[in-house]
Amino acid sequence: MAAREADAETAPEPGGKVTITEIARRAGVSVPTVSRVVNGRSDVSPKTRARVEDLLQRHGYRKRPAAPGTRAALLDLVFNDLDSPWAVEIIRGVEEVAHAAGVGTVVSAIHGRTGDAREWMRNLRARASDGVILVTSLLEPVLHDELRILGVPLVVVDPAGSPALDVPTIGAANWAGGMAATEHLLSLGHRRIGLIAGPPRLLCSRARFDGYRAALEGAGLALDDSLVAPGDFHPESGFAGCNTLLDLPEPPTAVFAASDQMALGAIEALRRRGLRVPEDMSVVGFDDLPEVRWSAPPLTTIRQPLAEMGKLAVRTVLRLARDEQPDSPRVELGTDLVVRASTAPPA
Amino acid sequence: MAAREADAETAPEPGGKVTITEIARRAGVSVPTVSRVVNGRSDVSPKTRARVEDLLQRHGYRKRPAAPGTRAALLDLVFNDLDSPWAVEIIRGVEEVAHAAGVGTVVSAIHGRTGDAREWMRNLRARASDGVILVTSLLEPVLHDELRILGVPLVVVDPAGSPALDVPTIGAANWAGGMAATEHLLSLGHRRIGLIAGPPRLLCSRARFDGYRAALEGAGLALDDSLVAPGDFHPESGFAGCNTLLDLPEPPTAVFAASDQMALGAIEALRRRGLRVPEDMSVVGFDDLPEVRWSAPPLTTIRQPLAEMGKLAVRTVLRLARDEQPDSPRVELGTDLVVRASTAPPA
Repeated sequence: MAAREADAETAPEPGGKVTITEIARRAGVSVPTVSRVVNGRSDVSPKTRARVEDLLQRHGYRKRPAAPGTRAALLDLVFNDLDSPWAVEIIRGVEEVAHAAGVGTVVSAIHGRTGDAREWMRNLRARASDGVILVTSLLEPVLHDELRILGVPLVVVDPAGSPALDVPTIGAANWAGGMAATEHLLSLGHRRIGLIAGPPRLLCSRARFDGYRAALEGAGLALDDSLVAPGDFHPESGFAGCNTLLDLPEPPTAVFAASDQMALGAIEALRRRGLRVPEDMSVVGFDDLPEVRWSAPPLTTIRQPLAEMGKLAVRTVLRLARDEQPDSPRVELGTDLVVRASTAPPA
Repeated sequence: MAAREADAETAPEPGGKVTITEIARRAGVSVPTVSRVVNGRSDVSPKTRARVEDLLQRHGYRKRPAAPGTRAALLDLVFNDLDSPWAVEIIRGVEEVAHAAGVGTVVSAIHGRTGDAREWMRNLRARASDGVILVTSLLEPVLHDELRILGVPLVVVDPAGSPALDVPTIGAANWAGGMAATEHLLSLGHRRIGLIAGPPRLLCSRARFDGYRAALEGAGLALDDSLVAPGDFHPESGFAGCNTLLDLPEPPTAVFAASDQMALGAIEALRRRGLRVPEDMSVVGFDDLPEVRWSAPPLTTIRQPLAEMGKLAVRTVLRLARDEQPDSPRVELGTDLVVRASTAPPA
């Protein structure tokens, strides 16, 4: 502490004003105590507060106003889990637009647990957040009810469950993406195409599955249940699902993994058997995470515009906070096929 | 709007109280307007405010207090960029501890630009943040000076530049990690070991480089400058650096890439030449990002405890905000060698 204060005495004083460190020294209190007075916090004794305020005033320091309406805007960005590179893409988009609007982005994870959600809700009330962006959580209905009572606007990104909630949603064109992934493999000449599916309780998984089926049917092929392995979007399940498909009497020549992370697991399963991608089997993912540009081989995948989804979510929640209606209550941003090195015609 | 209000009239009223939607309907205003009154915001006309407050009171609604000192705690977590899976690991650690303490985590990126940093600083003042955690930014000295004037406590994670700032820092044992990576390759029998280095302006790069050199010297080998390729931690530079090393008259038999992302780029450079990892060349990374468990092959790397660094940063900044001193002003958390499938004895 001594070193810090000595240091501050020789520090430049912007605008010719005395520093808070100097105020602290003269009042005989610590810098954080002065900061608490400046910030209008209550956890300072009345006597100390009076002494600090007196010094602040004498040195021309303007106390930061703490009256209602002057607090800076905040929005809450809530994930189920922060364990995927997927999350950082959305954070990046949200932060960019919020920052430009002078709005702070509070990031939280509720781990699908009602207890965590309740604690988060208490904190949300206490910080008087101006809006909430909720990403892929099965707690949507619970949070929706509570936020409606609080009157805090809510936008859901990548809705997890039933789309029947009366709340704006921003998703990706999952069905069209599933169809494009499968059509790409069909166009290369594949006829036995496996699917490693996402968890069926999530809307996006069901849409990707239906896109896969629609593409097969469009090519005159019936859905073969034995070519569909279950997965949970994590790499381990892609690894296991690919092994299941490879153990079939007649394995597929290509596989569509409904997430990039499952595609990475599938590629590793193939590598362990000494099989090459794409020579021995083609693999398509879904997401286009930054890391799959550098998988071995670089992954052909369906690009989900995660950062753009985040940006649109901020614009929508800020409109709602201003009492304006969103342009459209349900938006699906387009997905694109990105062809890299993991797909080729069948051997 | 109509659908939303009709819906609310039949919604359950928790605690027997009327909902905000119902208050809005009776006052003839929108739900966000009622929310603004409840939250003590100023952007509501006095007439509307009076009508809404009257209704709130009659229905037993307690207006949320907006007096100083009741605002919930916030901390600011500031990155240079949010373009790496690296960031989400730190966010995960910070959020976990902050959430448990009832503190909101505001995440920002300042892109190494003084303009962005100034805008962020304005927002920080406006939201009266209680503390700042700054991650690997060369703007450390600028922010440090301004935050000291504001009296907001600062903790630096993974200090980028000179460690001379009078501020607590939390880093990883980069020198020991660089040494462990190189010793692992030496123990497998490698003698020509390449390095793809990080940017020399960052402290962590210099420490990893010195650890590499110390291990070589410990084994009686002199540093060979031709075996050191420059990099910037991104995969593209790992790809280019590995190609540079492979083009040498006598290429190394193993390479230590000073970040996992550069290691992925190196593996792809090898794959494109038809070379196998680890049979033809061993590769070691640095970071242990979740994704490298599923690279092809799974990457041997040095684990940086990123989430733990984030957790400790929160505990430290909260101590400072309470006027307590940190246990130690400079902490380096240990790094560990994680052996997976990308390293083997030389062919």
